[in-house]
Amino acid sequence: MNGAQSLIRTLVDAGVDVCFANPGTSEMHFVAALDSDGGPGMRGVLGLFEGVVTGAADGYARIAGKPAATLLHLGPGLGNGMANLHNARRAHTPVVNVVGDHATYHKKYDAPLESDIPAVAGSLQGWVRESGSSADVGADAAAAVAAAMDPPGRVATLILPADVSWGDGGVLVSPIPPRKPHAVGATTIKSIAEVLRSGEQVALLVGGPAARAAGLRAVSRIAAATGAKPFVETFPARLERGAGLPNIERLGYLAEQASYQLDGTKHLIVAGTKAPVSFFAYPGKPSDLVPDGAQVHTLAELDHDVVGALEALADEVAAGVEPVVQEPGRPALPSGPLTAQNWVDVIGALLPDDAIISDEANTSGVLLPGATAGAPRHDVLTLTGGAIGQGLPVATGAAVAAPDRPVIALQADGSALYTISALWTQARENLDVTTVVLNNHAYAILRMELQRVGADAGGPRANELLDLSRPDMDFAKIAEGMGVPGTRATTAEELAEQFRAAVAEPGPHLIDAVVPPLM
Amino acid sequence: MNGAQSLIRTLVDAGVDVCFANPGTSEMHFVAALDSDGGPGMRGVLGLFEGVVTGAADGYARIAGKPAATLLHLGPGLGNGMANLHNARRAHTPVVNVVGDHATYHKKYDAPLESDIPAVAGSLQGWVRESGSSADVGADAAAAVAAAMDPPGRVATLILPADVSWGDGGVLVSPIPPRKPHAVGATTIKSIAEVLRSGEQVALLVGGPAARAAGLRAVSRIAAATGAKPFVETFPARLERGAGLPNIERLGYLAEQASYQLDGTKHLIVAGTKAPVSFFAYPGKPSDLVPDGAQVHTLAELDHDVVGALEALADEVAAGVEPVVQEPGRPALPSGPLTAQNWVDVIGALLPDDAIISDEANTSGVLLPGATAGAPRHDVLTLTGGAIGQGLPVATGAAVAAPDRPVIALQADGSALYTISALWTQARENLDVTTVVLNNHAYAILRMELQRVGADAGGPRANELLDLSRPDMDFAKIAEGMGVPGTRATTAEELAEQFRAAVAEPGPHLIDAVVPPLM
Repeated sequence: MNGAQSLIRTLVDAGVDVCFANPGTSEMHFVAALDSDGGPGMRGVLGLFEGVVTGAADGYARIAGKPAATLLHLGPGLGNGMANLHNARRAHTPVVNVVGDHATYHKKYDAPLESDIPAVAGSLQGWVRESGSSADVGADAAAAVAAAMDPPGRVATLILPADVSWGDGGVLVSPIPPRKPHAVGATTIKSIAEVLRSGEQVALLVGGPAARAAGLRAVSRIAAATGAKPFVETFPARLERGAGLPNIERLGYLAEQASYQLDGTKHLIVAGTKAPVSFFAYPGKPSDLVPDGAQVHTLAELDHDVVGALEALADEVAAGVEPVVQEPGRPALPSGPLTAQNWVDVIGALLPDDAIISDEANTSGVLLPGATAGAPRHDVLTLTGGAIGQGLPVATGAAVAAPDRPVIALQADGSALYTISALWTQARENLDVTTVVLNNHAYAILRMELQRVGADAGGPRANELLDLSRPDMDFAKIAEGMGVPGTRATTAEELAEQFRAAVAEPGPHLIDAVVPPLM
Repeated sequence: MNGAQSLIRTLVDAGVDVCFANPGTSEMHFVAALDSDGGPGMRGVLGLFEGVVTGAADGYARIAGKPAATLLHLGPGLGNGMANLHNARRAHTPVVNVVGDHATYHKKYDAPLESDIPAVAGSLQGWVRESGSSADVGADAAAAVAAAMDPPGRVATLILPADVSWGDGGVLVSPIPPRKPHAVGATTIKSIAEVLRSGEQVALLVGGPAARAAGLRAVSRIAAATGAKPFVETFPARLERGAGLPNIERLGYLAEQASYQLDGTKHLIVAGTKAPVSFFAYPGKPSDLVPDGAQVHTLAELDHDVVGALEALADEVAAGVEPVVQEPGRPALPSGPLTAQNWVDVIGALLPDDAIISDEANTSGVLLPGATAGAPRHDVLTLTGGAIGQGLPVATGAAVAAPDRPVIALQADGSALYTISALWTQARENLDVTTVVLNNHAYAILRMELQRVGADAGGPRANELLDLSRPDMDFAKIAEGMGVPGTRATTAEELAEQFRAAVAEPGPHLIDAVVPPLM
């Protein structure tokens, strides 16, 4: 058994049985090992760009609840995958990167692809290890999975020199049981219960695992019993929504929105997230969004049992109180040229049961939560780290994790091209993903930000750089070129017809929805 | 004058007047400054992915001989641009990255896009500085340009916090004259002349600036006078070729080829490059390609005056000897279904005058040098660092640098999608680039490498991961979707007709050439 074979078998034994791969020469023994004993337990999914690979691993784990592996080619391959690894890091997604490197004895020659992999991987502030010998790879792989799964989850990067991969003496290593999240003590629960009973205005901001059903139910009970204003963090990794679940408002992306939502708060209780800060700095505006004079109380850090703490708190302050859940209800099917409102109404009207939404609609999607609140229960995967180009890869990985669930990718045009080849992987794997590109011919969010940062906006050269209409992109053609059926919709009726057809037919589809910019 | 304004004006004064940009919120004051006093001296060229931006900056500088700026958005933007910055680093291309960062006071809040920019930038082993105040930005910009231009050229990264960008007090700073390359001493010239006169078998390997006309002429004179075997490095940043220039063989990519070329060499003289090493390690094969027992003699390091040293050496050993130059001559126009030979013959037959070839044809292009040797004089820009996805961006930047020259991008399918949105930038800027995608439906080089590394090849799951035929990509449609006219050629006649038409018409074109895999 060589190092690569021990790696794959150890990963599979630890439950890591999908590898999103963009290999090169230094990874060829890993690739060859897919055909060896135990190799077939690992499903290799090819991406034609590393940002697709890493984003897919993120989407996969958000749905599967366990990591996928990635297979990347030296520093440049890792570099190409960094933006979506950044998003995965902010989502606290478990990911196991396998980054091939030159043979140990080859590194001193500074061959063209020699690169500083530890420096780049280290910037992710997760777990990094270089395998030193074929005999160690199994243990390193088991440690990588354990590190990735260690609460709250992180990006683990195993650097695999080619000779360590091809050398004999590989050892199969048993999985390391993941550590359980820390329990939150009764004293903390009691003291936060006191805050909720203080009679002062309280807001409750939750994130991480609390954005799923059990956590949201506990939050809703607490809010119903105490009058605290509940919020979900701005960009949850996985938010469960829809009819029958509490519909908890997300804290706004814009500092102005968040300040409005938190206005008057005297006590801010946080669980599974941090006290809110502005996404960017703006001249003369505060970075810290905690209202002046408000006290922050941490119920549970992200590596704590966040949901358990919320349930204990609910039992303390809301015994016998039921959560307030969303009634079923969908918008009527609209008509006319597409607008910022009617396209989300189409999605709300037609969202299939048990859907997964990968949401990178950005400015085009501001009205989406209202339109889908009463739709059938669904998951929303958001842009956790702000590095655009996440939407299509995350949808791809989610579809691999949940082959029986419809995946809907809502994708802004300005960020679609970063990782557009995810469509090819969707076609190759026949994944049931319906992508709706919101094609407003602009980096609309940057037009808005140009104003908000107080830059002298309106200059023709600045606006030119934020304009995507010259030339207009035809995403239906791009999709067809990558093997995904594509159509274009300019009216609500067309979008409805095409969306219904796309969802009804297995496999990937893309709809190029021509919408007006928000501003 | 704010920091951003001082930055742009200082860059323009130093001759850096093109900025390939993919901005975000933290870069909005830089974008706004394009409309301020002095701003119009800087041409902003938008890319929809950072790998396009950095690759274009590389291609621009290889042709323009001076750096472009890039504008990138925090760590994830720099990460997306890393692979082509790696290639630029290996090409010794001067590049000035401007990487926007959060405002200095905002960093402590660890907002979602907070990232370790210095770690990622530092991995490029170039020049990195963070601007600490608006008053410093001008001086930092001048220093960045000087660092980028300092022989032999490097990637300089200036990190620009948003508040430093928007703050008042910017100072315009005069350019710092670039350092001249070190002269090579007469003693070195004399001692290497002795080697050439030794009567033993000598090989001369040159790279960097020596791959251009003056260097090649000197090399040819030396070879003609002494019988030394001359070679150009495997992946030169810019190689001048064609009728009227010496046609110096490149050292092979495969270690086996290079060993054959250097067989029997007792003395290896290197100038403007390093002694050759294998691109990758292979089990049981040497990494060092210098033949056993051969002595290596360094005529000129890359930061020396390489061409001057070669000319001095030629004057020493080849006084009165003329270089051997390539006679004009083109292949006949071939016919029949496309093959590895006839597609290069089409290019050789029809290559326009004064063309720039961006060569990422990989395995499909092995026969290209023979077919184009006698074509009109042209430049070839090669994949210097081995990080694929360079070809289309480098072609884009080269076309910006040389609007009057036809640019031909020869692009393997397996590496085309990494940076495919370069086509959109070509359409937007109406650049005269003709892209020929060599569509062999495979990662053909990896099929070969799978065998060469001695991996148990032939396994169905391994081969599946190197197969791009499921689904087949239609690059003509993808191009059309991005605003570039696209056609498909399956015969030599079709390729000739489409290539002739594409070259004749201004603006970008793409030909999807369906070729058989080499193996």
